[in-house]
Amino acid sequence: MKKLLNSADTAVADALRGMEVAHPDHLRVDHVNRVVLRRTPASQPKVGLVSGGGTGHEPLHVGYVGHGMLDAACAGEVFTSPTPDQVLAATRAVDAGRGVLHIVKNYTGDVLNFEMAQEIAAAEGIRVDQVLLDDDVAVVDSLYTAGRRGVGLTMVLEKLVGAAAEQGRDLGELAQLGRSINDRGRSMGLALTSCTVPAAGRPTFDLGPDELELGIGIHGEPGRERLPMVGARDAAELLVDPLLADHDFTGAPTICLLNGMGATPLMELYVMYGEVLRILEARGVEVARNLVGNHVTSLDMAGCSVTLLAADDDLLTLWDAPVNTPGLRWGC
Amino acid sequence: MKKLLNSADTAVADALRGMEVAHPDHLRVDHVNRVVLRRTPASQPKVGLVSGGGTGHEPLHVGYVGHGMLDAACAGEVFTSPTPDQVLAATRAVDAGRGVLHIVKNYTGDVLNFEMAQEIAAAEGIRVDQVLLDDDVAVVDSLYTAGRRGVGLTMVLEKLVGAAAEQGRDLGELAQLGRSINDRGRSMGLALTSCTVPAAGRPTFDLGPDELELGIGIHGEPGRERLPMVGARDAAELLVDPLLADHDFTGAPTICLLNGMGATPLMELYVMYGEVLRILEARGVEVARNLVGNHVTSLDMAGCSVTLLAADDDLLTLWDAPVNTPGLRWGC
Repeated sequence: MKKLLNSADTAVADALRGMEVAHPDHLRVDHVNRVVLRRTPASQPKVGLVSGGGTGHEPLHVGYVGHGMLDAACAGEVFTSPTPDQVLAATRAVDAGRGVLHIVKNYTGDVLNFEMAQEIAAAEGIRVDQVLLDDDVAVVDSLYTAGRRGVGLTMVLEKLVGAAAEQGRDLGELAQLGRSINDRGRSMGLALTSCTVPAAGRPTFDLGPDELELGIGIHGEPGRERLPMVGARDAAELLVDPLLADHDFTGAPTICLLNGMGATPLMELYVMYGEVLRILEARGVEVARNLVGNHVTSLDMAGCSVTLLAADDDLLTLWDAPVNTPGLRWGC
Repeated sequence: MKKLLNSADTAVADALRGMEVAHPDHLRVDHVNRVVLRRTPASQPKVGLVSGGGTGHEPLHVGYVGHGMLDAACAGEVFTSPTPDQVLAATRAVDAGRGVLHIVKNYTGDVLNFEMAQEIAAAEGIRVDQVLLDDDVAVVDSLYTAGRRGVGLTMVLEKLVGAAAEQGRDLGELAQLGRSINDRGRSMGLALTSCTVPAAGRPTFDLGPDELELGIGIHGEPGRERLPMVGARDAAELLVDPLLADHDFTGAPTICLLNGMGATPLMELYVMYGEVLRILEARGVEVARNLVGNHVTSLDMAGCSVTLLAADDDLLTLWDAPVNTPGLRWGC
């Protein structure tokens, strides 16, 4: 295993220290609890937004802390759920009296640990609601998951609900908004290579030199099927078809995320976006906003995913609203 | 070779088409000449900034077209200099009567082709000046280069000179500013893996499972030496030592770019930044601004580079000025 780390044991702590000194104006880090927090609180008391998950998906979640997105993100060990203590510390830190929304990807450990933290926080008098993401159409039930997995839509939701929270919307409205985003968003990914978890030291799975894994999860979990390698045009079909089969995206302005899994060059992501857009237009789907880049990654995995969200005018306005985080920035 | 491309032959054209539809508000593309241009011209006539080079380093250069950086970028074939025709087309397109500055990385082909375009443009009455980058301290003379190579400092210079051009500075001032930035900036990189050029279909060089290449170029050119793999702390020393040996960075507020070569996860880049900053502080170097991420890449190469620039108040103000490009955005 070749990685630019000091050791697998200190990887998360070292990365958080690097983030803190790289973004001193944006972030502060509670190193005891491994929680990344906004440096500057919102000017008005607002609902606090907390997310988190295993490390290795950066910029998700820790890179999306800041104005217009999250108030705190909990960094678990690599591909490991954050503990209830971490989530509780984050929840306490961001509660400004208007309640806290937990944004949780649907993995069994994450769900359990966020729920436990929610119960303890509630007992302390902090109002907490939750949005659960399960946007991955690839498989139902998987390694680490009962039901569908939460993947690329997560960062889109964090952007949109984050903007709504800055507007001053209340906890119930934000939770409902988040659920509606999850209902109307879908993702599908493919991998050209495995990723290597530092503590394991070897690739999570093996893919032959002429194979791809369709429907891959963001932790190297198995996908739908293993296929012979194809070109960009066919790869785009493999990703878009299951999305359109699962949800009707016609008749709404959609937001499209073409997401790199970590090790795929930007050049290839742009080629893929061109192919994805061509297919969507041919199928009557109007893409109103897009994002191309590494946003919800899987360590050093090569591959990409497509996320579609059937938006509306409110969501497009929220998408365009200013955001100022290490991983996403515009209008600020 | 596993890449998300349609074919090696169409890779650059396909990527430019994808960029164009991904950033319709920011960019337009002259597909005949493979030149990426600002969608919206500056509000006041300004000096035009043109750069370019081989494709495969994205977001450099095509992703840095927009307000506060470049007016045009020429996309050569993968790792291949743009032709004089491309540079000439870009130069003509951005000349607003105040002249055009060419920003050129020191590779023999780039130097020749930009100079040829400069001569033709001059014969047409367009004033053109040039800044040549040779910031890589790793080697003198290399594959493709006489003298030192131009690498990571390029995007830093494009940001700074781009901001100065928006202020309305004239061609001579901008050329002088660019040369002064090149004089005061240094870079050093290392690779954990090779990259694979699509047309070649196999890795440019071989690195063993326990080896790194120190002083690597951004096209897989040989570096200074091949070393046994080390951890992040030692890797940071390997990169910072040659920079400080080559230039005195004490006594000035420095700008530090911790740049990923394309396939290295953000988590590792943050770990590396933490180590680099620790060393710099111990050596009396004050980092006033930083950037961590994939900015000057080398296709699917794993590794990173460090760029340091001894700045001053003027340069820090230019750094902080608004920029609005696909690859770098703040204040807009």
